[in-house]
Amino acid sequence: MQVKDLTTQKVNQTEFGGPNVLKLGESLIPKPNQNQSLIEIHSTSINRADTLQRQGKYPPPKGVTNILGLEFAGYELDTEGNRLRRVMGILSGGGYAQYVAVNKDHLIDVPSNIPLDAAGGISEIYLTAYLQYKLSELKKGNSCLVYAAASGVGQATLQLCNHFGVIGIASCSQLKVQKIQQYTNYIVHRDQSIKDQISQIKQYQPQGVAAVFDCVGQQNYQMTLETLGMDGKWILYGLLTGGSIEKFNLAPLLAKRINLINSTLRSRSDQFKAELAKDFTRTILPVIENGQIAIPIQSVTKVQWNEEGINQIIRLHTEMEQNRNVGKLIVSFQND
Amino acid sequence: MQVKDLTTQKVNQTEFGGPNVLKLGESLIPKPNQNQSLIEIHSTSINRADTLQRQGKYPPPKGVTNILGLEFAGYELDTEGNRLRRVMGILSGGGYAQYVAVNKDHLIDVPSNIPLDAAGGISEIYLTAYLQYKLSELKKGNSCLVYAAASGVGQATLQLCNHFGVIGIASCSQLKVQKIQQYTNYIVHRDQSIKDQISQIKQYQPQGVAAVFDCVGQQNYQMTLETLGMDGKWILYGLLTGGSIEKFNLAPLLAKRINLINSTLRSRSDQFKAELAKDFTRTILPVIENGQIAIPIQSVTKVQWNEEGINQIIRLHTEMEQNRNVGKLIVSFQND
Repeated sequence: MQVKDLTTQKVNQTEFGGPNVLKLGESLIPKPNQNQSLIEIHSTSINRADTLQRQGKYPPPKGVTNILGLEFAGYELDTEGNRLRRVMGILSGGGYAQYVAVNKDHLIDVPSNIPLDAAGGISEIYLTAYLQYKLSELKKGNSCLVYAAASGVGQATLQLCNHFGVIGIASCSQLKVQKIQQYTNYIVHRDQSIKDQISQIKQYQPQGVAAVFDCVGQQNYQMTLETLGMDGKWILYGLLTGGSIEKFNLAPLLAKRINLINSTLRSRSDQFKAELAKDFTRTILPVIENGQIAIPIQSVTKVQWNEEGINQIIRLHTEMEQNRNVGKLIVSFQND
Repeated sequence: MQVKDLTTQKVNQTEFGGPNVLKLGESLIPKPNQNQSLIEIHSTSINRADTLQRQGKYPPPKGVTNILGLEFAGYELDTEGNRLRRVMGILSGGGYAQYVAVNKDHLIDVPSNIPLDAAGGISEIYLTAYLQYKLSELKKGNSCLVYAAASGVGQATLQLCNHFGVIGIASCSQLKVQKIQQYTNYIVHRDQSIKDQISQIKQYQPQGVAAVFDCVGQQNYQMTLETLGMDGKWILYGLLTGGSIEKFNLAPLLAKRINLINSTLRSRSDQFKAELAKDFTRTILPVIENGQIAIPIQSVTKVQWNEEGINQIIRLHTEMEQNRNVGKLIVSFQND
């Protein structure tokens, strides 16, 4: 294969809206700049950020493709189109396509015992969870509270906690409690009143937790404030229920010296992402490779580049929006 | 002098209220534990925290004396009451008295060219400003916004900025602009609309500032959010206008990845304070000693331990509450 000016397949979107706005599309093959490699994508995943972007609620950073897809696993190609090695990584966009150009420093080697399907569900959740875990500065023996604990990032976070000897208290819907019992004995289900949830968390940790991993925002604000201990870290990385809070008061945050760390990964600099990928490769990837940390996969959907393939992606978007998945929804493109 | 069981003078307070609740009192001389030294206080200062505590709005940390006074300069005494050396430092309370017991690791030697009166106005503002400056992680060439810039901590912060090559933008009342022109060319006075202040700050720094040093809270919330740049640090260390904010929204904080760092010094651990004092002694005190950084003193009031002395302290509390001072109000006790 000569990879020059080739027309390739992608998932297209010409308007914002429900899952049905996604169409089969074509584009020219991306041209890597000198810092990039061309990647043949084998697998990617459906992320909540994709569904938000599709609705027009989460625009891609400036200069980034508007093709959805925040991670990939596949093959790094040479200029002749030959496969060099199996790689994975995060993307600012572009994963729902046959090819993508990726900063060379963002490429992570896929260990030989990890299938490329599974690898398509590692980077986004584990780099996100690892970044936040680092920002939390949690130490062995500390405890933390993990919202949306049954999500991919939630499960990744709980497993990082176990790995580092930190007590993870999980918050998730009652239906999903069973699925995350493998990671922690401390679970609070959110189909009860906020008051009851707070009371249960305080039973687990009377002194308060050292960190809260929060992708929920508004709905859990009171719980976050009341369960954090002195010098607690409030790591905010999403706003599933919105960010608008009535009767917000800075006084209790000051009294507890809480540090509200707002963290997103997608809009970070190339250098930041490169360093994070390097750090992750050194410290966490070996633990995934040896099986101590699992890749939380809900399903792997094999998708052809045709109308039915797009319909499968549409169904996966719907599944995520209905909050039915526990872990990653992986899309494995059948290129051959 | 034998310092055992001696009755000494202090400023007493039996009820919360206006400056007039302060009375002349007596108490037994403090008994230092094995980690403490007995200090003969020469000077202390009036701080806003003292006025809040007097009103019942800022209780001392658990186990701390309810005598006001958050810093001192004076003499470390041996068990016979002999003066060993000139020292200064912060206190959790107890500065409005003849003697205080202080953790030995919190004592800072007063350089020989700094009078003990002036030294009574160094520790609280410079340890506070230095702690916050460190938390801000500002780098040479960055810019920051300093609220209440004419206050002691404000002036200390602006001078630290100059020392470290950081551009300090000062916010203060119009009356006080002239007093802080020695520290910065970038001044925004707050006797204009918030909108005009924001607009002026944006003219100074179109990309936004890297940090805001905020002891104001509510009233400046919009200005803080709009003027901080990407990855900006919001260092909150006081709530002069309250902490309650209507229509608070986490979304813009997340979009800019703002880090809201709530910092207070008084309630920190003994170990934290000891390390801060050591770091300050190594890095900042020499710069004060050589005169590159000034001690912002509004006045030194020489006070006898009698009714008139208490009245002078009452007048200083009033001056601070009426926001008339620019820099430290130092009290120099005339013990002899």
